[in-house]
Amino acid sequence: MSRFLSKASESLLPYTPGEQPQGRKFIKLNTNECPYPPSPKVAEAILAGYEEKSSKIMPLELANLRLYSDPEERVLIEAIADHYGVGTNQVIAGNGSDEILGFAFRAFCDQNAPLQFADLTYGFYPALCGLYGIPFKVVPLEEDFTLNIEPYKNCGNNVIIANPNAPTGMNLPLSAIEEVAASNPDRVVMVDEAYVDFGGESCVSLLPKYENLVIIQTFSKSRSLAGARVGFAIANPELIADMNRIKYSFNPYNVNRLSILAGAAAMRDWDYTKECTGRICKTREKTTEALRALGFTVLDSKTNFIFAKSGDMPGKVYFDGLREAGILVRRWDSERIKDYVRISIGSEEEMETFVEETKKLVEAARSAVVR
Amino acid sequence: MSRFLSKASESLLPYTPGEQPQGRKFIKLNTNECPYPPSPKVAEAILAGYEEKSSKIMPLELANLRLYSDPEERVLIEAIADHYGVGTNQVIAGNGSDEILGFAFRAFCDQNAPLQFADLTYGFYPALCGLYGIPFKVVPLEEDFTLNIEPYKNCGNNVIIANPNAPTGMNLPLSAIEEVAASNPDRVVMVDEAYVDFGGESCVSLLPKYENLVIIQTFSKSRSLAGARVGFAIANPELIADMNRIKYSFNPYNVNRLSILAGAAAMRDWDYTKECTGRICKTREKTTEALRALGFTVLDSKTNFIFAKSGDMPGKVYFDGLREAGILVRRWDSERIKDYVRISIGSEEEMETFVEETKKLVEAARSAVVR
Repeated sequence: MSRFLSKASESLLPYTPGEQPQGRKFIKLNTNECPYPPSPKVAEAILAGYEEKSSKIMPLELANLRLYSDPEERVLIEAIADHYGVGTNQVIAGNGSDEILGFAFRAFCDQNAPLQFADLTYGFYPALCGLYGIPFKVVPLEEDFTLNIEPYKNCGNNVIIANPNAPTGMNLPLSAIEEVAASNPDRVVMVDEAYVDFGGESCVSLLPKYENLVIIQTFSKSRSLAGARVGFAIANPELIADMNRIKYSFNPYNVNRLSILAGAAAMRDWDYTKECTGRICKTREKTTEALRALGFTVLDSKTNFIFAKSGDMPGKVYFDGLREAGILVRRWDSERIKDYVRISIGSEEEMETFVEETKKLVEAARSAVVR
Repeated sequence: MSRFLSKASESLLPYTPGEQPQGRKFIKLNTNECPYPPSPKVAEAILAGYEEKSSKIMPLELANLRLYSDPEERVLIEAIADHYGVGTNQVIAGNGSDEILGFAFRAFCDQNAPLQFADLTYGFYPALCGLYGIPFKVVPLEEDFTLNIEPYKNCGNNVIIANPNAPTGMNLPLSAIEEVAASNPDRVVMVDEAYVDFGGESCVSLLPKYENLVIIQTFSKSRSLAGARVGFAIANPELIADMNRIKYSFNPYNVNRLSILAGAAAMRDWDYTKECTGRICKTREKTTEALRALGFTVLDSKTNFIFAKSGDMPGKVYFDGLREAGILVRRWDSERIKDYVRISIGSEEEMETFVEETKKLVEAARSAVVR
C-alpha cells in the first residue's frame, strides 16, 4: 500500500481469482471453465476474409483491430436479443459478467439502496460493494446450503441471487425468484445466471411481469469463451439505459472487436452449446455417483461443478493431495465450507483420472486411520 | 433514467465516443485510429499452432478461449517492461487505457485528494471523476492553447496531464513534467501519454527520480490495436500494487486472452511501430502545410491528429461539409473550440482526398462571400 492510496481504497478486499497455472500442466478443475473448445463458428467469424494491405496479409478481422470496436456492440447484442426473444434495448454487454455486475451494482445500489446476498455465493459481490462504497447485508444459507427466500421477501434492499448458486451448485425454482421479485417492487432483484445452462431455468420469461428484474449471464461457462471475456445483462430498457450510463462513464468501448464477433457466433450456435452442456451434465452425474460411492457428501448440482466433502479427509488434505497428483480444484478457508472442495466438471477422461486419484487418496486416508 | 437509478448515478455525465459508422463507408478521421493494420506478428501470435479437438480444427489460441486469461497478463507485462527497461512489478495492463485511468483515479483520488486537469483535454477525465465521486479542478489552457504549468506546481491536488494533449495535439517538454512532479511530492502526477509515439518524449526516464509519477499509455494509436482494447501504466511498484487493488476489486481477468497476445506481439515489434508512426508524422506535416496554405490555423501537433480552424468557415459548416463528402472528423460544441475540428491522420491517399475535399469547401465558402 503506497502512501498515495486514497482513504476510500484502503479498506478494499480485492477478489482472489482461481489459479491460472503457467508452467506445470495440471488437470484444471478450479475455475469452472468448459472442457470443450468454443463453437467452430467462433473461429470462422474471427478468421473470415483476408485483406492485403501494406504487402502484409492477415485475416480481415485481425487487420481491423486497428479500428475501435463498436461501442454499441450491435452484432453481439442482436445475437443475444434474438436468442432470448427480447429487444436489443433490453441487453447490455460487458467485458465479462464481472464488469456487468459492476455496472448493475453502481447503477442501482448506494447508501440508500444497500445490497443483500447469501453468505456462501460468488465472492466477488462484496469486493464490488467495497469498490463502490455500497453497504451490504449478508444472509446465511440454511444448514443444508439451501437458500431460504423468506429473508429476501419485502426486504427493503436490492438483492442479488446467483441461481444456480456457486460454490454450492444448488438451484432455486423459477417460482422462488418470482416471489422475491414480486415482493420487492421498489427494489432491483438481480439474478446471476452464470451457470443456468447446466440444468437451471432462466428467469428471462419473468421479465415482462417484473420491471425490477436484472438477469446477468456470461459466455465463460456454457459458451466456452472464458478467455474472450464476454458477459451480458437482460432487463427492461430503462434499467439497461441506466447501466449504459455507467458503461459510458467507465469504458465506452468495453468489449473488444474479436470478442464481439466470438460472442455473437457462439450465441447463434446454440446446438453446439447444448451438445457441450449435455455432455458436461452427463459427466457431472457420473462423477457425483462415483464420489458418493467413495463416501463423499456431494450437493445436488445444476452447474458445471460439484461441491463435495470427503468422509475420510479434511478438505485441505484432499485439496493438497489432488494438487500433488496434478489436479487443481478450488477450496476456501472459511469455517462453514473448509472441508468442501469445488470441482469443475472437465472432460470425460479428465474426470476419470480425477476419480482414480480421489480413490487413491481415500484409500490412503483410510489405511492411515487403520494403522 | 429508471426509478431504480441510484442517487449517486443521477448526476453522471457519460462520455460520448466518436462515431463508429456501421453502414456507409466513410474516410474515418474521427477517432485517432492508425490507418495501418497491426504488426504481422500480431496475426502470427493469434494464429500460431493448430489443435484438433472434438474433431473440430481451429488455431490453438482460439480453442484456448475456453480458458480464462492470465489475470497477471504476464506475457504482455513482460513485453512492456522489457521495452521500457522497467521491472514487471512496475507495469499494470488494462482493457484499454480508459480502464487504466479508472484504476488510477479510484486508487489515488477522493474527497481528500481531488484531481486537477485542463479545460481542453481528454473529455473522459470528468466522466470518470463523476463515476467515482472525485472532486476536480479545471484549469483553462492559455489563449494559444498552451498548457501553463504554473497552476500545477505545488497545487495540493493530484494532477493529470495528457502529453501530448488532445484535442490540441500540443506537447510539453519533459522538463515541464518534471517541474510538476517535483513540486507535488505528496500528490500523484499522472501523465497520459496516449499520443507520445508521434513526436513526444515519454517521461518513463523520470520514474527513478519521482515516486509520485504514473505514466499511462495505450495500444490504440501507435500500435494499431484500438479494437483489441489494451492500455497500461508504468509507475513505482507500490503505486502499481495500489492500482491492482482496484483491478482485483473490479475485474480480475480484465484483459482477454487474444488481446494479451496481440499486445505482447505488437510491443515486441517496435520496428513496425516506428515505421507506422514515421509515415503518419510525414503525412501529418504534409497535411498541415496544405491546410495552412488554404488559410487554416493549424496547431503544432506531436500526435496522430491535427486541430485546425478554417479562415473561411465556421467549424460546424466545415464538419458538415466533410461529412457530406464522406469524411468523418471530430468536433465539439464548446465555446472555445467550436470553430476547430480535430482531424486524425489517415493514410497518404485518405489525406489527399481530405485535402481535395477541403479545397472544394474553402472555394465554395469564398465564392459564397464574393456573391
